[in-house]
Amino acid sequence: MNFASDTTAPVHPKILSALAKANDGYSASYGEDEWSRAARDALAGVFETDLDVWLVASGTASNALALSVLCPPTGAIACHREAHIERDERGAPEFFTGGGKLALLDGDHGRIDFGALERAVVANNPDFVHETPLHALSLSNLTECGTAYSAEDLRARAALAHAHGLRVHLDGARFANAVASLGASPADLSWRAGVDVLSFGASKNGAIGCEAIVLFGEAREAFAGLKVRAKRAGHMPAKLRFTAAQMCAYLEDGLWLELAGVANKAAAKLAASLEQACGAELAHPLDGNQLFVSLPQPVQQRLSEAGARFYPWLDGSCRFVCSWSTTDEDIHSLAEIARKS
Amino acid sequence: MNFASDTTAPVHPKILSALAKANDGYSASYGEDEWSRAARDALAGVFETDLDVWLVASGTASNALALSVLCPPTGAIACHREAHIERDERGAPEFFTGGGKLALLDGDHGRIDFGALERAVVANNPDFVHETPLHALSLSNLTECGTAYSAEDLRARAALAHAHGLRVHLDGARFANAVASLGASPADLSWRAGVDVLSFGASKNGAIGCEAIVLFGEAREAFAGLKVRAKRAGHMPAKLRFTAAQMCAYLEDGLWLELAGVANKAAAKLAASLEQACGAELAHPLDGNQLFVSLPQPVQQRLSEAGARFYPWLDGSCRFVCSWSTTDEDIHSLAEIARKS
Amino acid sequence: MNFASDTTAPVHPKILSALAKANDGYSASYGEDEWSRAARDALAGVFETDLDVWLVASGTASNALALSVLCPPTGAIACHREAHIERDERGAPEFFTGGGKLALLDGDHGRIDFGALERAVVANNPDFVHETPLHALSLSNLTECGTAYSAEDLRARAALAHAHGLRVHLDGARFANAVASLGASPADLSWRAGVDVLSFGASKNGAIGCEAIVLFGEAREAFAGLKVRAKRAGHMPAKLRFTAAQMCAYLEDGLWLELAGVANKAAAKLAASLEQACGAELAHPLDGNQLFVSLPQPVQQRLSEAGARFYPWLDGSCRFVCSWSTTDEDIHSLAEIARKS
Amino acid sequence: MNFASDTTAPVHPKILSALAKANDGYSASYGEDEWSRAARDALAGVFETDLDVWLVASGTASNALALSVLCPPTGAIACHREAHIERDERGAPEFFTGGGKLALLDGDHGRIDFGALERAVVANNPDFVHETPLHALSLSNLTECGTAYSAEDLRARAALAHAHGLRVHLDGARFANAVASLGASPADLSWRAGVDVLSFGASKNGAIGCEAIVLFGEAREAFAGLKVRAKRAGHMPAKLRFTAAQMCAYLEDGLWLELAGVANKAAAKLAASLEQACGAELAHPLDGNQLFVSLPQPVQQRLSEAGARFYPWLDGSCRFVCSWSTTDEDIHSLAEIARKS
Repeated sequence: MNFASDTTAPVHPKILSALAKANDGYSASYGEDEWSRAARDALAGVFETDLDVWLVASGTASNALALSVLCPPTGAIACHREAHIERDERGAPEFFTGGGKLALLDGDHGRIDFGALERAVVANNPDFVHETPLHALSLSNLTECGTAYSAEDLRARAALAHAHGLRVHLDGARFANAVASLGASPADLSWRAGVDVLSFGASKNGAIGCEAIVLFGEAREAFAGLKVRAKRAGHMPAKLRFTAAQMCAYLEDGLWLELAGVANKAAAKLAASLEQACGAELAHPLDGNQLFVSLPQPVQQRLSEAGARFYPWLDGSCRFVCSWSTTDEDIHSLAEIARKS
Repeated sequence: MNFASDTTAPVHPKILSALAKANDGYSASYGEDEWSRAARDALAGVFETDLDVWLVASGTASNALALSVLCPPTGAIACHREAHIERDERGAPEFFTGGGKLALLDGDHGRIDFGALERAVVANNPDFVHETPLHALSLSNLTECGTAYSAEDLRARAALAHAHGLRVHLDGARFANAVASLGASPADLSWRAGVDVLSFGASKNGAIGCEAIVLFGEAREAFAGLKVRAKRAGHMPAKLRFTAAQMCAYLEDGLWLELAGVANKAAAKLAASLEQACGAELAHPLDGNQLFVSLPQPVQQRLSEAGARFYPWLDGSCRFVCSWSTTDEDIHSLAEIARKS
Repeated sequence: MNFASDTTAPVHPKILSALAKANDGYSASYGEDEWSRAARDALAGVFETDLDVWLVASGTASNALALSVLCPPTGAIACHREAHIERDERGAPEFFTGGGKLALLDGDHGRIDFGALERAVVANNPDFVHETPLHALSLSNLTECGTAYSAEDLRARAALAHAHGLRVHLDGARFANAVASLGASPADLSWRAGVDVLSFGASKNGAIGCEAIVLFGEAREAFAGLKVRAKRAGHMPAKLRFTAAQMCAYLEDGLWLELAGVANKAAAKLAASLEQACGAELAHPLDGNQLFVSLPQPVQQRLSEAGARFYPWLDGSCRFVCSWSTTDEDIHSLAEIARKS
Repeated sequence: MNFASDTTAPVHPKILSALAKANDGYSASYGEDEWSRAARDALAGVFETDLDVWLVASGTASNALALSVLCPPTGAIACHREAHIERDERGAPEFFTGGGKLALLDGDHGRIDFGALERAVVANNPDFVHETPLHALSLSNLTECGTAYSAEDLRARAALAHAHGLRVHLDGARFANAVASLGASPADLSWRAGVDVLSFGASKNGAIGCEAIVLFGEAREAFAGLKVRAKRAGHMPAKLRFTAAQMCAYLEDGLWLELAGVANKAAAKLAASLEQACGAELAHPLDGNQLFVSLPQPVQQRLSEAGARFYPWLDGSCRFVCSWSTTDEDIHSLAEIARKS
């Protein structure tokens, strides 16, 4: 009954066995290998466009490196007040940008309110030397509250940002879950919606440690600079073929969407089970694999005592995260314990 | 015939299969797992002392994080003019320290000359506000020229550094090769010689991507700060168990020394073969798995055309690196081509 | 009728003539001169305690250097959402701290709400590696809204901060105006209230460019580090005697409080005049020399057309700043134009 | 007998009195005033070309800000091993560039050897991700050894740098002394020789604290960014008119060259006097106002005991610096004491 995070789950066997396949004799270092090329090609296929990509092993590295090519030390990045880059990355964006700022925006359920964004970009004045101007907008899909932006939601916010000279980053640590949930194409939820740089995650969905920083369109001009920053930050390990092999296996035959679909369905089932078991209500709409529910204190305690793992959230709710490996038994056991009051 | 680097070699099967073993159900994230504890314990055993350790996936990250806890933004790190941290890490020490400097020292064959170090530390004046004072000494064993410092060499330099208030870092990307070559104990070549922080590498000796930042003695007080810096730099991926599992397998039953011994012996054999084949002379003493030889231009060209991979070095010599997977056939083939003139 | 800022006013003649007195032959550089010593002694007298001080030429340098010794790159500084360090210093705190963050707190009229601060420090968890913990609280007196914290207000907030391990900075760009307004002693409004480091300004109150970073109590241990940071940031010009001479003249015979009193009285008179002339209401309580009033658009336009200088503020009000050189004529003329509707 | 530095000398009366003239009522802040415009125009006249300029109060700020617009965090700046930016600015270039490196070049008498520069730029490979490439060359005129580069010397080095994609900075803390010594025009010793950004000093030649960062030609595109960096580093004090007024007075009627000429002549006279008094030999050619002579230890001691101020230099010589205020009496007295052996 481990619902603490999708990162506590085991790695999918297909991804693990891809490493053994990649361990085939000598290979060029630092991303010049054939698996790295194959990963890029596979991503280009999935996103239906040419693109550049750099692979790293952690979501924080992926986000911070991505932001560092979008925002100078003297600029700011607009994001949601509860965004992962603000709350959970220990100042990585500030470190990688060389002292850039995050400008926090409000919005329900982890989604940046359109009006709040509008006020921020309209007030933005890059020519006023005293204030730190916005250079980028960072969105997350799924959000930290487990909710999704639709393609239209993204398009509207990205268009607003672009119209005011900002570039757009998408934290897609759970992009697979968003795609599986929304049924829109990866392209529609990224570059066609105006995303310039996407942090495309695999680690929360069955990989060991594999996150792709994907550059689309004009942002591809930043690719050489991105590699330099990756090198300088220690994110250019020699044997990148083993990271690339994970991405190849992740994308092959739609494994990534299959796994995300499993996780999303498990979350929906868990929501229904908890509602039925103890009347638990959703604190945020359920759009993917993260469930936020209000649980009576005695239920929380009983679950904890039974060894269930989940997180008390800042808003008073409890977060349960499902993954590709969540089983019906896990869900059933949890609900049974929740019920016994 | 790939002698380009020990990082182009495949991963050792025992290390690869350790990942599958670690993929055993759910596990805590961010280094709180049992494999991380086991890796620490194994290192403590190998080094015969209690210690703290953080695991990262690249040598650059290992060195730069280690240095960042030894030197403030306003200080400098003394190192050899040809040290990896100076020449091959794209300013990572400067980035991670927040703008610290490297102070370059001379010395034959990649080893810092004792007199040069003495002059530097004697001239050091931390109270003079205008100049950047030395805070740390960084040594490499093996050096970039493939040579080794003996335990006594290390002890003398570390004692000098400590006497002037500096702390000591050892870049041990090829520490295994140094231990295998010198026959001294890991403890004698590290903390007993005065090393405060060791970057202990496995990636060049059979691992996928696994480098341990090892804190000894008083330097262990910096451990909490080291973890914060690792997090902030994106070097705290969730599923650290898979990095830790590599280290466990690497140390188990002395695999690390066995592999280093194989690589060292291959280099010795290669040196003898090339000497015999074309009279190639060593440009630097051969103390491990890196061979620097002077080769006539026609020989170089013939080797390249035959598909042999090696590096022309700055000093005019050619670098050949052997690894655990270098075969007698590789060596024989290379020598045969070198001979045909 | 220049009410744009107290920095647009001329320099007080006594301060200007102090430069000529300091221009007396040769003198040691970099703050080792007798005027620097005299400035320190004068500040110690005014604040009734021993202290350390470094003089810089701008408020941004003063605040950012002060904060850089209170907060590491991996930490955060709590301040008001509208604080000068957040809104008007182009990321200087982030630059000088090496990537630290500002955590923004709410509160009416530019004053940090006690409850908001309490929630922030109670939630602070320095041991949680993923979040950026608070290391310092930065207050401003006067605030950006022209309001004052009483000694008791400061004491309560500083005590709360200290109880949770934070240190306390006070942006005193208009400290003189606060002292003149509140009638409390400089000591009561600084170290006795729990302020560890004070940015004590003179530039807005008659000096050319002179701001003292004053370290009290245990914070004095950071003095050597502060000088290093000042040097490294270009804030250790050779001829510091001319900055120190300004501070000496500023403090001599209470000139600083005399000038602040004049400015405060002018603001009070202006408020009354505008109220009487056009019914202008205060947007924020008037505690010093900065006046925020709601003015009908036609009045604003008439004033601008007549050459009056003032700032439209973010909250819709208009900011008028008085200085030591504001005259009754200025005020009278302004009110007359405001009246003519 | 204060020959410690030209910064220990008093300020020239004409420059001091310019401050009083500038203290004429209200004025715009942050460099938008008429004196700032006049300073720019005066510099354009002296340099016979249009240009952009930002004024700061210290040489370290001038150099570091200049370099920060020429070199990214991931790049390096080539300079002489004994350059002020390397030895005397406490890592300011590293701080302002965000972690850029200095690459040290050799050369006699403080001048970068042409061959050394050639080897460095020829080896430079901006496309190789692992090494830090050179982005800028920083020359000093006068050098730290008191020697001058001729216009031709500068031209040759700048052309070499430009041919390899570097931009050229000139540390002109003693540019006036170089111009006065060489008899070449300011233009010939700066932009016409290929200098992109000049740190043009006045503080060592009679000003209080005034250094101009002058952008020529294409480098002017960096002006907006330079101002942002100045602001963020606390080098945009409100009352810039008082810095600008110094520059105006400094340039008016050739005061700057007159003062530099006086200082240079004093140095020449001092050299002759010491040679005649005690056979003191020059350690470096005397091209300006800095004299490096070998003095017997007893002479050094006698001078020190008599209260003479000078610096023992790293190379074993003694440095004496003359300024606009050095008198014949100072020189005569010094020589007399040196003679008495």
